[in-house]
Amino acid sequence: MDLSSFLASLTTSFLVFVILVLVFTWLSRKPGNSVIYYPNRIVKGLKPYEGVRTRSPFAWIKESITSTEDDIISISGVDTAVYFVFLSTVLGILVSSGTLLLPSLLPIAGTAKGDAKNNSNFTSLERISMANVEEKSPRLWAFLLATYVVSFSTLYMLWKAYIHVSELRSTALSAPDMKPEQYAILVRDIPAVPEGQTRKEQVDSYFSLLHGDTFYRSMVVTDNIEVNKIWEDLENYRKKLARAEAILEASKTRPMNKTGFLSGEKVDTINYCKEMIDDELVPKLEIEQENTIREKQQSSALIFFTNRIAATSAAQTIHAKKVDTWTVVEAPEPRQIIWRNLKMKFYQRKLKKDIVFVIVALTIFFYMIPIAFISAFTTMKNLKKLLPFMKPVVDQPQVKTVLEAYLPQITLIVFLALIPKILMFLSKTEGPSISYVVRASSGKYFYFIILNVFIGVTISGTLFKTIKEVQHDTNQIWGLLGKSLPQNATFFLTLVALKFFIGYGLELSRLVPLIIFHLKRKYFCKTDDEVREAWAPGDINYATRVPNDLLIVTIVLCYSVIAPIIIPFGVAYFGVGWLVLRNQALKVYVPSYESYGRMWPHMHARILAALIIYQVTMIGYFSIKKFLYSPFAIPLPIFSIVFALMCRRKFYNSFLYTPLEVVCAKTKETPNLETIYNAYIPPCLSSYKFDETQEFGHALSAFRETGSLV
Amino acid sequence: MDLSSFLASLTTSFLVFVILVLVFTWLSRKPGNSVIYYPNRIVKGLKPYEGVRTRSPFAWIKESITSTEDDIISISGVDTAVYFVFLSTVLGILVSSGTLLLPSLLPIAGTAKGDAKNNSNFTSLERISMANVEEKSPRLWAFLLATYVVSFSTLYMLWKAYIHVSELRSTALSAPDMKPEQYAILVRDIPAVPEGQTRKEQVDSYFSLLHGDTFYRSMVVTDNIEVNKIWEDLENYRKKLARAEAILEASKTRPMNKTGFLSGEKVDTINYCKEMIDDELVPKLEIEQENTIREKQQSSALIFFTNRIAATSAAQTIHAKKVDTWTVVEAPEPRQIIWRNLKMKFYQRKLKKDIVFVIVALTIFFYMIPIAFISAFTTMKNLKKLLPFMKPVVDQPQVKTVLEAYLPQITLIVFLALIPKILMFLSKTEGPSISYVVRASSGKYFYFIILNVFIGVTISGTLFKTIKEVQHDTNQIWGLLGKSLPQNATFFLTLVALKFFIGYGLELSRLVPLIIFHLKRKYFCKTDDEVREAWAPGDINYATRVPNDLLIVTIVLCYSVIAPIIIPFGVAYFGVGWLVLRNQALKVYVPSYESYGRMWPHMHARILAALIIYQVTMIGYFSIKKFLYSPFAIPLPIFSIVFALMCRRKFYNSFLYTPLEVVCAKTKETPNLETIYNAYIPPCLSSYKFDETQEFGHALSAFRETGSLV
Repeated sequence: MDLSSFLASLTTSFLVFVILVLVFTWLSRKPGNSVIYYPNRIVKGLKPYEGVRTRSPFAWIKESITSTEDDIISISGVDTAVYFVFLSTVLGILVSSGTLLLPSLLPIAGTAKGDAKNNSNFTSLERISMANVEEKSPRLWAFLLATYVVSFSTLYMLWKAYIHVSELRSTALSAPDMKPEQYAILVRDIPAVPEGQTRKEQVDSYFSLLHGDTFYRSMVVTDNIEVNKIWEDLENYRKKLARAEAILEASKTRPMNKTGFLSGEKVDTINYCKEMIDDELVPKLEIEQENTIREKQQSSALIFFTNRIAATSAAQTIHAKKVDTWTVVEAPEPRQIIWRNLKMKFYQRKLKKDIVFVIVALTIFFYMIPIAFISAFTTMKNLKKLLPFMKPVVDQPQVKTVLEAYLPQITLIVFLALIPKILMFLSKTEGPSISYVVRASSGKYFYFIILNVFIGVTISGTLFKTIKEVQHDTNQIWGLLGKSLPQNATFFLTLVALKFFIGYGLELSRLVPLIIFHLKRKYFCKTDDEVREAWAPGDINYATRVPNDLLIVTIVLCYSVIAPIIIPFGVAYFGVGWLVLRNQALKVYVPSYESYGRMWPHMHARILAALIIYQVTMIGYFSIKKFLYSPFAIPLPIFSIVFALMCRRKFYNSFLYTPLEVVCAKTKETPNLETIYNAYIPPCLSSYKFDETQEFGHALSAFRETGSLV
Repeated sequence: MDLSSFLASLTTSFLVFVILVLVFTWLSRKPGNSVIYYPNRIVKGLKPYEGVRTRSPFAWIKESITSTEDDIISISGVDTAVYFVFLSTVLGILVSSGTLLLPSLLPIAGTAKGDAKNNSNFTSLERISMANVEEKSPRLWAFLLATYVVSFSTLYMLWKAYIHVSELRSTALSAPDMKPEQYAILVRDIPAVPEGQTRKEQVDSYFSLLHGDTFYRSMVVTDNIEVNKIWEDLENYRKKLARAEAILEASKTRPMNKTGFLSGEKVDTINYCKEMIDDELVPKLEIEQENTIREKQQSSALIFFTNRIAATSAAQTIHAKKVDTWTVVEAPEPRQIIWRNLKMKFYQRKLKKDIVFVIVALTIFFYMIPIAFISAFTTMKNLKKLLPFMKPVVDQPQVKTVLEAYLPQITLIVFLALIPKILMFLSKTEGPSISYVVRASSGKYFYFIILNVFIGVTISGTLFKTIKEVQHDTNQIWGLLGKSLPQNATFFLTLVALKFFIGYGLELSRLVPLIIFHLKRKYFCKTDDEVREAWAPGDINYATRVPNDLLIVTIVLCYSVIAPIIIPFGVAYFGVGWLVLRNQALKVYVPSYESYGRMWPHMHARILAALIIYQVTMIGYFSIKKFLYSPFAIPLPIFSIVFALMCRRKFYNSFLYTPLEVVCAKTKETPNLETIYNAYIPPCLSSYKFDETQEFGHALSAFRETGSLV
């Protein structure tokens, strides 16, 4: 790509961005759109425009900039605040490196009497990159120094950020307001129930023996699949009923429906739903609830304590002689728990993790194979065979040309878009909580994206040209990467620019959710609940956002010294991202869980991984430039690894467990233990009514019973 | 070595063993020797011969065999019992493998029409080894099967042993008798003292805030080097005084001594000692005690709790937000604590460990270099130059010949004998307790001995013969080991035989300690204390005993299939060892600490390491034999590694920490907390007298003060 086409694409992207921002300014002022542009404020019970004085198109920028970290924490939680620490850390790294590198390296590279002058293949962009510096030139010292500057500014920023995030986490955890998860632990791998005891008795006697007064009560985890199905059915019929009643009110005609899917006799919907709810599902639910609580108790339980210190300490202490039984962890938030994963046994969990690891590793390394397979499968010929009714359409010449040209690419894009879903699905089988799943999935996606997009594009772009050199030099894979990088600089520059102009433009303007919402409201929604569902904004979705940001970090770091012109693009990406997402966090997205910054160690480790990739690439590139002093760059990755180990030792444990010091702060009031307990009852069991005369030993138990036990 | 000389050396060793056993039988009957042959019983306050009816020469064997594990635990502790589990596990592995392998493999090898017949270099022993089987022979299937048999019998025995040891450990830890270390934790890395507080106040307020009622009191660790020196001086003068008084009583002449070493004026010893003690050292000690307790407080402390559950749980819980401050571990036994190591800071500890690791790795890999250096240094010429007064002696022809011949070997032997001492010295700088140091040192010594003795001898024995083959085949280092093994079989057979006949003969007869004791008693000892010191038996010394046993395990395992004739020798080594050491544990050695079997995971891991070395060697040897199905042996090391990981997950944590379940058993009586506290006061401070009027804030504090605090 030459300079003019690069500038053209840059200008186009920028124009699209400006238009999108203007569209946002115009649309967000209409009161009818406020549920799309201010849902988080509405959910929180705030007025959409509260505190907004001016109506200028750039008011949102001012609001984003003036909002403090405390605002973010109070409106969107610690996890969001930690995500902004991530953005601003990267921004800090790039700004500080850019300030030093741009004014020094660009002239040094531009004035070099380098290889580029004699090579017509060089683009103008490459004339101000390291590719322009001739081999063995003493000018390379400046680039070596720059490599050190970038490395140490990264390490310094990461160190400061880790301290800051630790502080955020412990402040949030020591806050005096009552958090149910701080009073509970999750115990798994409970051994078989001894003769003559119920599971509940077994658990209660075990913990009251070991913890005495501080043990409050227990909740045995049950297999809720069956009861949950009935409960969801019931909820669906309730929604249908509400909808039918709304239709009746609006149109004064009684809605009818078929009892089966597209078939069955036609019935009056309101009567049918009422019958289903009252006569069939409610009694069925009650029986199944009873059955679940009595018969479907699993080998895990939630244990509640009377104070935070006791729960925190219990979660970190080995309980049983056989350490693979009665294993304890801190309880996840009630809304995060993945109930069906709680029953997994010790070795089952480990095995599942290993299996998922192998599947993911295979996917990452061989993802081209299924794509090739699917591509072969989705040829025109096969398509016609499988979907004969498509034949007349497909056989039209124009359609045929387009399909033949794009079918493989479309499969590729579809498959790439599927990857995060597949990884999320795989991760979901592993952990007990949603935040764990998001972290696991995001970690996997990062490695996928780095290997297949960054390294894949870079190497495959030049691999075929240099295949013969490689054969003589197979142990220099990093040298190869170093060699390929400058040639792909414009590609990645365009990618970064596209990502922030188009990506953040769409993010801010929320055109897609807006259109979907208006369509739904017009043609589908009848009740208030349905409208609310139609604008529910979801959360920031770290599982794909973080790896994508990390891809940009890796790209910008790797090019920071080779083609320093990429740094301003990186700054723009994270700067614009910070502004736009700050707006979205304050006004749009509603976080679906709170893990108090447990994502940070993962971000930290992956920024370091990016740094190490960068350092090793630079070592390779320096030796390609035949720079005699390139071994001076070798200490850099070693520093990074030592730094990683040090950070792990210093900080990681306080993210894995809650330190006792943190929870020793006094709580606002004496916690209502019954509220804490009730917070953990899954919704499908929450309507369960306790019988005055029932015997002791249920998975759930009414307060009056265990109250006497302890 | 041919068969006849092998049998000759075997017979000689056996005769020496028989003589030593007879000497032991004869000497141990003499009442004057009972302090050498029954010191543990005497220390325990039992009569030497109690319970011994017969006076037959083999009575000790009967006693060893009939003693139960409970006897061992009550007389010598859990650590000794665990050592016997180790011995009997290895014995079990060898007996079960031997029963299957010997009757099957010996005929198969012996009847092979193998390479051996045509090769005059083969000894008779090699004729019944795998070396005699021709290449590609189907007979190799039997050896492959045997490899599986040995592997799985090892894994099975190890699994059973780990369960058994876990049981031993938890039974001992849950015993109702009061153990001070179960009520205390060790906290290190305490941050700087805040303004206006003493260290003691800081620690007390921290733990009483976090642990409330269960916190009893604290003891700040002090820098005792100075006070300890004075206290040792004082103790020496007290001993001197006792000795002088004993001499006076015996000879009726007042002993005299010089005030300096070999110089100074002559004084009356009794008066001089009394003066030194009363006028100089006692006041000096009191001042230094006061000074130490007030001024030399370090950044670590022992924290005492009112019950075992609280202490156990506290030792496993992260306390501080900054996880590198206020780090907690279970307190070591009072007698095990290495006080001077307690003050080390977090990163200092890690750094020290890393430095020691590097030094040890260098020692292990390059130990020949310093030896060569020392050898060059200790030539005749240098010796004469350095020690001119030796010249007339050295210049005598016979002496000269002997010295020239043996000087390098003597250096080698001295240096090899120094290795455990060096490793022990290095390990001593690392850990907080003696049992830790023994484990660390034993682990290092194992790797040293395996690399330098086993692999060193094996490979160097054939390396020079095959150096050309190796050059073509550098990636087959294991193949090389496999090739070298059969040729060295007789060497190792002799080594094993020598070790158990001579080694255990000397062990049982205790000739060296006996002679030293009698010499000391006759020419030196004047007081009862001095006599007691002269026969003090010491402990079993796991730091060198375990690695040496593990060397034999490795040798016997590696040869078990290649030359199965080694198995009976291994059985004899561990059988005789079990008998002799059972006797020694019951009657001789006094354990110097109790770690409740924490040595076991180390033994377990190293037996597994030996197993993996064996399995990999076998893979190499099968491929040398050009056996087509040798890849069938590849799963074996993988099994072993998976087994190791599984055991680590299942058992290791309960050795690292005490499970809560273990300590929840009721103790015999309400523990006397003051006794527990006093058990931890180091001897050099135990004479410190508390002043009624003193202010609060000392490292140690009198009971009445903190009694009111909590």
